[in-house]
Amino acid sequence: VSRVLLTGATGFVGRHALDALARDGHEVHAVARSAGPATAGVSWHALDLLAPGAPGQALIADVEPEVLVHLAWYAAHGKFWNSAENLRWVECSLALLRAFALAGGRRAVIAGTCAEYDWSLQCLDEDAPLRPATLYGAAKHGLRIVAQAFCEQAQLELAWGRLFFLYGPFEDPGRFVSSIALALLRGERAAMTAGTQRRDFLHAADAGRAFAALADSEVQGPVNIASGESIALRDLAEAIAARIDGAQLDVGARATAPGDPPALVTAARRLREEVGWRPSIGIEQGVEQVVGWWRERLAGEVRDLPAPRRPDER
Amino acid sequence: VSRVLLTGATGFVGRHALDALARDGHEVHAVARSAGPATAGVSWHALDLLAPGAPGQALIADVEPEVLVHLAWYAAHGKFWNSAENLRWVECSLALLRAFALAGGRRAVIAGTCAEYDWSLQCLDEDAPLRPATLYGAAKHGLRIVAQAFCEQAQLELAWGRLFFLYGPFEDPGRFVSSIALALLRGERAAMTAGTQRRDFLHAADAGRAFAALADSEVQGPVNIASGESIALRDLAEAIAARIDGAQLDVGARATAPGDPPALVTAARRLREEVGWRPSIGIEQGVEQVVGWWRERLAGEVRDLPAPRRPDER
Repeated sequence: VSRVLLTGATGFVGRHALDALARDGHEVHAVARSAGPATAGVSWHALDLLAPGAPGQALIADVEPEVLVHLAWYAAHGKFWNSAENLRWVECSLALLRAFALAGGRRAVIAGTCAEYDWSLQCLDEDAPLRPATLYGAAKHGLRIVAQAFCEQAQLELAWGRLFFLYGPFEDPGRFVSSIALALLRGERAAMTAGTQRRDFLHAADAGRAFAALADSEVQGPVNIASGESIALRDLAEAIAARIDGAQLDVGARATAPGDPPALVTAARRLREEVGWRPSIGIEQGVEQVVGWWRERLAGEVRDLPAPRRPDER
Repeated sequence: VSRVLLTGATGFVGRHALDALARDGHEVHAVARSAGPATAGVSWHALDLLAPGAPGQALIADVEPEVLVHLAWYAAHGKFWNSAENLRWVECSLALLRAFALAGGRRAVIAGTCAEYDWSLQCLDEDAPLRPATLYGAAKHGLRIVAQAFCEQAQLELAWGRLFFLYGPFEDPGRFVSSIALALLRGERAAMTAGTQRRDFLHAADAGRAFAALADSEVQGPVNIASGESIALRDLAEAIAARIDGAQLDVGARATAPGDPPALVTAARRLREEVGWRPSIGIEQGVEQVVGWWRERLAGEVRDLPAPRRPDER
């Protein structure tokens, strides 16, 4: 049982990491711009990590966490790939890490991304060459290089969880799984590419639990946060359509974007064998849940539609 | 002629970059913690770039420079290799770059280091693999990755000048050339290794002029700031000793540190052929000048001994 400080604690992945860390009995200090729901074992700290005056550094000095799980980042759908906000998060992340070392921290776990890898490769395992094609990928890659050298120097453990493709409730409605589900639930035709591209999709709840497991382990360095199983986008879309009466999926109606990689997959060996963690939600079950979640919201039974943008969370 | 903002303008290299930029007729805005000597065409801005409230960002918004030459960094002799200050300078540098893009800047020139390269290699030309072994090298490497992706996105030109080994007046007395010169001038025996290690040494005045030439060029990406000629440490020490009566150089009195690279050299092809710049001070002339400079100071003729530490300058 450790004192853990979690950033991005109301985010798409963070909310699930929070639940898992609290369930494991840790003393969790959860950071987000607005406090989330009251939970046993969780202290909320509502603050904007990018605000002037470095409030995150002051909080870390005050809390003196043993473990830092840093998931907060700019994640506005579509915009995050090349926004200057990525630089602000590199700056903020380094400042948090310095404060964490000064406060006597032991282990840092930070969210990276599969976009750090060279996407021309067939398999993006942890030893694959890194060649980010986006500012987001470059920012995470550059941060990892500095963070790793710093943690070695400061004798901090560092685990770097590279997120692959995610889906689940509270997803931005513009992202793949939600956009297909929403169109079909509204009775619209859902146009897509031929969908032969293979991706590793992990349910956000599993991603959050994977980060909690990584935090509890002694594994260091890059660890892919992924299911280890890939699915073609067409198969994923058809799994969604199969759960919606009268669904009209237009496979092949859109051209595949030039340069869209045929495969972004990984065996997730380190997560499975070294961390000893496996996902608990299969694609069929996960898709079932997401379709039900959007159906309830469209029917007006539930009113907590996700905000269109949730800039500091993922 | 451009409006140029120069950081580290009183530093070991920066003072010479400043002179060269002013001589070329640029409108130079010079940033340092304390203003330097009044110079035609130069406006001094005395501020600490690491101070709270991001004073460098405000200055850039005010000055609206077309060219940013960013040389400021933590450079305390011996300590800079693995200090956490390197992280603060990454943070600061990214913040300056964001402000520069917002202010309509055109071209950024930033100081990198040969310590970004894999030092197990024989020749560190710009296309050599990067594998920094120190926090300083990792910080510059990580910064370059983020800065390059950002500048591509923001349509800024970026030139990245990788400094090799430097010497000259105002050098920290603990660094190689000055430490040998000082010991010999004091009549002490100067103990050194066998000195077979080859290094590329450039006079700081040449390094400053090289940065000014790089700023004036259209060359982008990494450019080694070096002479393109290497010298064995033993030959360099003997060139110093030859200028001091009764000098006693103990070559081989010290063991070479394990892992000390046999060669850290480059052809400096980009600087010579693409930027079209060559050094003007040869080793013999440069050593003559440094020995004279220290001799004057030891004789008490000049009292401006360099401060033992000059943290934000190099």
